[in-house]
Amino acid sequence: MSKKKVAVVLSGAGVYDGAEIHESVITLLALDRQDAEVQIFAPDILQMHVVNHLTGQPTDESRNVLVESARIARGDIKDLAEANIKDFDAVIFPGGFGVAKNLCDFAVKGLDCSVNPVVENFVTEGLKAGKVMGFVCIAPALLAKIAGQIDLHPDITIGTDESTAAAVEQFGAHHVNCLVKDFVIDEKNKIVTTPAYMLGQRISEVAEGIEKLVNAVLELC
Amino acid sequence: MSKKKVAVVLSGAGVYDGAEIHESVITLLALDRQDAEVQIFAPDILQMHVVNHLTGQPTDESRNVLVESARIARGDIKDLAEANIKDFDAVIFPGGFGVAKNLCDFAVKGLDCSVNPVVENFVTEGLKAGKVMGFVCIAPALLAKIAGQIDLHPDITIGTDESTAAAVEQFGAHHVNCLVKDFVIDEKNKIVTTPAYMLGQRISEVAEGIEKLVNAVLELC
Repeated sequence: MSKKKVAVVLSGAGVYDGAEIHESVITLLALDRQDAEVQIFAPDILQMHVVNHLTGQPTDESRNVLVESARIARGDIKDLAEANIKDFDAVIFPGGFGVAKNLCDFAVKGLDCSVNPVVENFVTEGLKAGKVMGFVCIAPALLAKIAGQIDLHPDITIGTDESTAAAVEQFGAHHVNCLVKDFVIDEKNKIVTTPAYMLGQRISEVAEGIEKLVNAVLELC
Repeated sequence: MSKKKVAVVLSGAGVYDGAEIHESVITLLALDRQDAEVQIFAPDILQMHVVNHLTGQPTDESRNVLVESARIARGDIKDLAEANIKDFDAVIFPGGFGVAKNLCDFAVKGLDCSVNPVVENFVTEGLKAGKVMGFVCIAPALLAKIAGQIDLHPDITIGTDESTAAAVEQFGAHHVNCLVKDFVIDEKNKIVTTPAYMLGQRISEVAEGIEKLVNAVLELC
């Protein structure tokens, strides 16, 4: 059996302004343990802002999403604009505020958010092609926004946060409450989601949910 | 049985100028899965330099080791200068070039390197107090340098890299060749080391060695 090919899309490197680092590494580890063939991508754009993760305060720095994501990827990363969905069996988006600040602007604009065109195109093509797609933490909100635009209404979870759940329902998705160690699978639309740090307090419980998501994504391929 | 208290010392966030991100997260995950009580530390100093991880080239930016390490710690991190070795049963240093560029300057000065005084003091106190200490990837070189200064000559590994092995022998340690999925334990000195990305090609094999190191560290406590 040939290896399953999975694109992992990052949004920077750090929970408050980029991809959540634990979620990203746990995703990559779980994929490698299942012998998946992974290519990491990120869009070549500036971050919305840079947050000092010690103080939680924004700084006056400017950083690039692809360049910072390369820290998690150990340099082995490509511009998402170069990605062709046909090359992959599945796509996984780890979470972190970068998803809601860099890949789209849901963190500041909520229901009025717009999605980065490269990200929107990649996810839309994936949904239309019936690729298996996994979304971790806040990333299901991005999926809900894009899916709603093409009249898809998948079952997804962002955990139990009521205001975010209400937003994804407004986008047209169906929200399902879910524990951190569990995941939600929409077999018809081939979409898998898990709450991770939307809900989790400990890295070990976040890992349990993500490992289940990765296994479900690969089984759906 | 009370929880084992472990200090994890980071050196930034990114393999080329800071703590190796995979090694750091895998260490934190393995510790949490064993129900250890973890406090993350880093020194409050500027990085030696900043490397663009997409191109591998240095940039003209300036970043702080504690602030960047806070990305891996999700903000839950303290200045290493505030750490008291008496509060911990064990200490673990993940690897990455940050260990050899920020915690000491082994990467540029080799045998003539000097160690950051806060780091040197913390490790020296740990060795003198008989605390259990784990060092991943290139971090055993830092340990060898500090141990040699107090006439300790532990068995350690940095994998199979001959020039680095020769350097740690010059510092007074005894180098043992080791595979990436394995580890070296010096029971007398309570020191555990594993090669990780000094040798590893895949995150899953690096994880196997680090998980064994974490288990050995906790068993020695």
